[in-house]
Amino acid sequence: MKAKLLLSAMLLCGIVNAQNLKSPDGKLECNFGVEGGKPYYSLKKNGVTVIEKSFLGFVLTPNVSQPYTFKVTEDNSDIDFSKNFEQGKTQNSSFSETWKPVWGEEQEILNSYNQAKTEFIQKTSGKKFEVVFRLFNDGLGFRYEFPVQKNFAYFVIKQELTEFKMSSDNTVWWIPGDYDSQEYQYTECKLSEIQKNFYKNVRDNASQTFFSENGVQTPLLMKTSDNKFFISLHEAALVDYSCMSLEFIPQENKFISHLTPDATGNACYMQTPCTSPWRTIIVTDDAAGILASRITLNLNEPCAYEDVSWIKPVKYVGVWWEMITNKSTWSYTDEASSVKLGYTDFKTAKPNGKHGATNQNVKKYIDFAAKHGFDAVLVEGWNIGWEDWFGFSKDEVFDFVTPYPDFDVKMLNDYAHSKGVKLIMHHETSSSVRNYERCMDTAFKFMKHFGYDAVKTGYVGNIVPRGEHHYGQWLVNHYLYNIKKAAEYKICVNAHEAVRPTGLCRTYPNLIGNESAAGTEYESFGGNNPEHTCILPFTRLIGGPMDYTPGIFEMDLSKLTPDNTSHVNSTIAGQLALYVTMYSPLQMAADLVENYEKFPDAFQFIKDVAVDWQKSVYLEADPMRFITIARKAKGSENWFVGSKTGLFSRTSTLKFDFLPSDKQYVATLYCDAPDADFKTKPQSYKITKGLVNSKSVLTLKTVSGGGYAISLVPATAKDLKSFKKLK
Amino acid sequence: MKAKLLLSAMLLCGIVNAQNLKSPDGKLECNFGVEGGKPYYSLKKNGVTVIEKSFLGFVLTPNVSQPYTFKVTEDNSDIDFSKNFEQGKTQNSSFSETWKPVWGEEQEILNSYNQAKTEFIQKTSGKKFEVVFRLFNDGLGFRYEFPVQKNFAYFVIKQELTEFKMSSDNTVWWIPGDYDSQEYQYTECKLSEIQKNFYKNVRDNASQTFFSENGVQTPLLMKTSDNKFFISLHEAALVDYSCMSLEFIPQENKFISHLTPDATGNACYMQTPCTSPWRTIIVTDDAAGILASRITLNLNEPCAYEDVSWIKPVKYVGVWWEMITNKSTWSYTDEASSVKLGYTDFKTAKPNGKHGATNQNVKKYIDFAAKHGFDAVLVEGWNIGWEDWFGFSKDEVFDFVTPYPDFDVKMLNDYAHSKGVKLIMHHETSSSVRNYERCMDTAFKFMKHFGYDAVKTGYVGNIVPRGEHHYGQWLVNHYLYNIKKAAEYKICVNAHEAVRPTGLCRTYPNLIGNESAAGTEYESFGGNNPEHTCILPFTRLIGGPMDYTPGIFEMDLSKLTPDNTSHVNSTIAGQLALYVTMYSPLQMAADLVENYEKFPDAFQFIKDVAVDWQKSVYLEADPMRFITIARKAKGSENWFVGSKTGLFSRTSTLKFDFLPSDKQYVATLYCDAPDADFKTKPQSYKITKGLVNSKSVLTLKTVSGGGYAISLVPATAKDLKSFKKLK
Repeated sequence: MKAKLLLSAMLLCGIVNAQNLKSPDGKLECNFGVEGGKPYYSLKKNGVTVIEKSFLGFVLTPNVSQPYTFKVTEDNSDIDFSKNFEQGKTQNSSFSETWKPVWGEEQEILNSYNQAKTEFIQKTSGKKFEVVFRLFNDGLGFRYEFPVQKNFAYFVIKQELTEFKMSSDNTVWWIPGDYDSQEYQYTECKLSEIQKNFYKNVRDNASQTFFSENGVQTPLLMKTSDNKFFISLHEAALVDYSCMSLEFIPQENKFISHLTPDATGNACYMQTPCTSPWRTIIVTDDAAGILASRITLNLNEPCAYEDVSWIKPVKYVGVWWEMITNKSTWSYTDEASSVKLGYTDFKTAKPNGKHGATNQNVKKYIDFAAKHGFDAVLVEGWNIGWEDWFGFSKDEVFDFVTPYPDFDVKMLNDYAHSKGVKLIMHHETSSSVRNYERCMDTAFKFMKHFGYDAVKTGYVGNIVPRGEHHYGQWLVNHYLYNIKKAAEYKICVNAHEAVRPTGLCRTYPNLIGNESAAGTEYESFGGNNPEHTCILPFTRLIGGPMDYTPGIFEMDLSKLTPDNTSHVNSTIAGQLALYVTMYSPLQMAADLVENYEKFPDAFQFIKDVAVDWQKSVYLEADPMRFITIARKAKGSENWFVGSKTGLFSRTSTLKFDFLPSDKQYVATLYCDAPDADFKTKPQSYKITKGLVNSKSVLTLKTVSGGGYAISLVPATAKDLKSFKKLK
Repeated sequence: MKAKLLLSAMLLCGIVNAQNLKSPDGKLECNFGVEGGKPYYSLKKNGVTVIEKSFLGFVLTPNVSQPYTFKVTEDNSDIDFSKNFEQGKTQNSSFSETWKPVWGEEQEILNSYNQAKTEFIQKTSGKKFEVVFRLFNDGLGFRYEFPVQKNFAYFVIKQELTEFKMSSDNTVWWIPGDYDSQEYQYTECKLSEIQKNFYKNVRDNASQTFFSENGVQTPLLMKTSDNKFFISLHEAALVDYSCMSLEFIPQENKFISHLTPDATGNACYMQTPCTSPWRTIIVTDDAAGILASRITLNLNEPCAYEDVSWIKPVKYVGVWWEMITNKSTWSYTDEASSVKLGYTDFKTAKPNGKHGATNQNVKKYIDFAAKHGFDAVLVEGWNIGWEDWFGFSKDEVFDFVTPYPDFDVKMLNDYAHSKGVKLIMHHETSSSVRNYERCMDTAFKFMKHFGYDAVKTGYVGNIVPRGEHHYGQWLVNHYLYNIKKAAEYKICVNAHEAVRPTGLCRTYPNLIGNESAAGTEYESFGGNNPEHTCILPFTRLIGGPMDYTPGIFEMDLSKLTPDNTSHVNSTIAGQLALYVTMYSPLQMAADLVENYEKFPDAFQFIKDVAVDWQKSVYLEADPMRFITIARKAKGSENWFVGSKTGLFSRTSTLKFDFLPSDKQYVATLYCDAPDADFKTKPQSYKITKGLVNSKSVLTLKTVSGGGYAISLVPATAKDLKSFKKLK
């Protein structure tokens, strides 16, 4: 890691009305200052305003958490911490370094920015905050910092008033603002059309709390109406603070931050010195630039762990899709109408005959994983409690250490290890986080005892403690507690239903995955839109990798379960593309063993594809329409290309100029066949093998919901004779 | 332990309009049935109605904990679970046993009752509950039981509607109903006068939440207007349920139960099979009978631990009163305006020079404890974080393992152990219970490592998770979690500011103390009323022992701290009496070493008095006026008598007929001197020594706030010559 730090302190005394900061390449310009007593910032690219003058500030509230006291002696009026400000001193600096992530889309990441740290002092109260602006070539990050100061040690944030005022009626890709779920399909519309479309893509979720019909979630993607710029709004380094959604104010064409409240209606409990998370605005000339931005990672702290040798990318299969499709069950018996740990006797309970996590079935997956070179097997539904696992606001749902009678923890781990495979633990908490925290040490010790080194966590249903939300400060604090506690045991975490990631995997790389969006499971709950995976990389994935669990080969789910009428809205070639386009160090081959065995040639791509990368090249990108990415495997000369098609069938013109100019490669192409159709002929694909080099250009047709995948292996002398050049 | 179980099943089919149950001695009669679709009970003693027809039932509520969802699809109307009932079968039984508590007021406790278990079925819903009535000779206990049944596995209790309808405008001794504090002085008035007196004895508390100006807390003491009966209302075995207060309804002269709500306004989250705590109604002919009742303990489950050898009564001193009186401080420095664990550096901080828990000061207490035969020394303020320890809704206040620089944990424990003394740990949580639960295992391991075997816990300030209350189900569950977790480490718990005890010490005898009332500390916060300790044994102590921390010898607190204008409203003789009248297996000598050294003759009683008893005899009792109790030490022939005087000076006629008839005893009397006055001459006492036997009768004068204490030791042949008979 090489670092270059340039500090040019520029202390400006007195009141300054406007200051500016430029990006290293000079193309972005951030202006900030105070107008009418209100701190503001704005952002231009190439001299064109992208974010208009947008104000900053907070509503604070007295620290009173006694809603039932009828004899209130405290002054309960909220405190306006957004006006009567003057600007104090500003300190400018520059920074540039490259750093190496433990895993990622590229082996080295450049972190280069110009920074201004400026003080805003509220004249009436004497209290102040600082705002640090970091301007990168591809966007702005800024955060509030609250230094130690007199009479301002503790404070409660009721709301944050950070504005993002848009310069046009942008096209926006969004999901509804919600304190508890991000599992929605995306809507594309104009800013002015959000409200009327609010319920368009709403589906019921086990926990779901809207706050405004103009509420949306980040990462939020936009395109200016002149098609000049793509803009992404999000946050980085969400630590011990409430997660930010955005509320659109149509009259002023602006978003205003909306923090997830706690059970008493407050958002954040703060103690100086402290900071907010970074608010990020990526601005690029094209959509591919959004995918290539590293702002979110760069605004997080460096890795907190000295030893990271135990953190490894993983390709896995699992006893999971069969439960999601209702072919088998998480639960063991149909007799226990409600389970009480320590009371319900599973030894004498009658098995329902559909339990997925049986010794026999798990061994089948272990055998399959070993045969095909997978690292691990996830097993859900192994522990007692699944008969009534969510929806009852239950405190003790699972104990995380007691298997069902037909799951032999020791035998199965021993069996897996003997074949070079690991089992992945599953900790569904049902959102009962007190219970999980109480059990956590015991659960992790149990894992290490049997040789597990990764856990998938889950937070389905309403949060216990009741009144708290999935994205409030209480839970944000919990998720990180879980990650740090896991690290003490050298355990990697893949957290489902947790708060959306904000680049924390840089600091805590054992957070190897998150769900935080509608994943493949929704293909079994009515189906994802065919364009869904063509918007996720521009939105949800800005914060960090997603455990999307791709690789479904059997799209007609009634073949698995007669009463499941869902259809997987993708072709097989489209599914293969996802292993490249949906970056994750944790990739699942989610379908059933028997479905892969029907298509061994297509399955070969899943076996071959890497899960960690030296370099990524974003070739084609248009939100909801298509994404084409080429990636070079880490520690290898192999390349892989994925191209996912969304709304409309198309022809991709693939230039191989990302390849080194001096080499020939054997390319294996997995493409939609001409007659492929995500609804009627999803399993129609065509595999082609031939030679390519950096000068090759291929024209590849894909269908809606389809795509293609390519593996590229340096050609041997024999290959050069065996294969023809592809055209 | 001998047990006798008689079961006479009496299954009555069809609708029954009234049934009755009699106590073993036939004097108490409980009637129960259904009237107008509403389950009820009533209670008579000697044919006189004590509790008039009182209805039973609940308000249930749908399990929705999403107050912010504006698109509610669920039906949110509450469910009336108090009407449309019919009575089902009833099963009668009798039970009698004696059992031995690990520690207590007597060595053997008789548990003898007649029981009726009756079903109440709601015709409209088909759902049912059972009520178990247990009628003892001195009162009634009843609880709701919810058996496993169809469509009623989980339910949420919004309120419990248990009524206690009084037969007259009783005299009542009460403190204000509050979800977070019991630290009040008592008010004596008529039931009809509660509301107008509501704020009479209200003082500010760090956490305080009233719910009604007719709200009162249990244990609640009453006397019928004809002076015939004393009545105590309370609950027993409060486990994973919300604590009950009572709301008086003047128009109907009845109390109705009021459960402490959670952050969302609900009280209890239940899963069948489950029960409510027992609702207890002690009815006795005189006030002494209230003190002698064992109903609360008997309605709790037997001891949950096989090995109880590690649980021992304790007499202790402590570095505590000097902080309470502001002579020294819990905190180490005045420089840290706010402490952040891991950020604030105490090694370089300037000591304030008043820190109590210094090596030197703690050694002084250890030396004193060893010299005078005390078991232990409590040390508060030993760990970092006290500079801003409550009132800020702070998540991480203490880590429970990091001492201040001037407190050497290892040295001090080693020093204490070398002198046969133990240190008592202090875990102030500042009500941040998530943080305490996260730290608990580490904290207990730390304790065992250094040789601590008891902990005083504290819950000052508003609860975190915010919106929860000290007496809600969430916290009730937490306190028991703490007790059970401590037991895993063989640690005893003395919980301050926790929910009022309900006899759980029978089941979990490592709960050796609770505060849950205004203790001696209030003598330094403006003073307790002189009658305060003459009402606590009738009220607060019904549920279990209190760590009242008596033994103050210097009543003028300005002598300790010039700016402390509080006065301890008691005489020295009155303080000595408390060691007998305020039963606890944990007794502190709370004053400073130097104050005891001034009065070594009076201090001798504190050194001599036992803390565990074979037998207790309640000689005189009148609430707020006086209490005289004689107790025989366990495993000894020594007796101790305590007589505490409250509102009015009086003459106690003490008959020694509790002594065996064949023995002479040397009695040492510690009495108010004739000129004693709790305000002006509190240190005026007189010590007399002489012989007594079972025929002796002494006339002893005491002053308001005064009292007397007597130790009785079997006389030796030499004693019989040395001492005269007392008259």
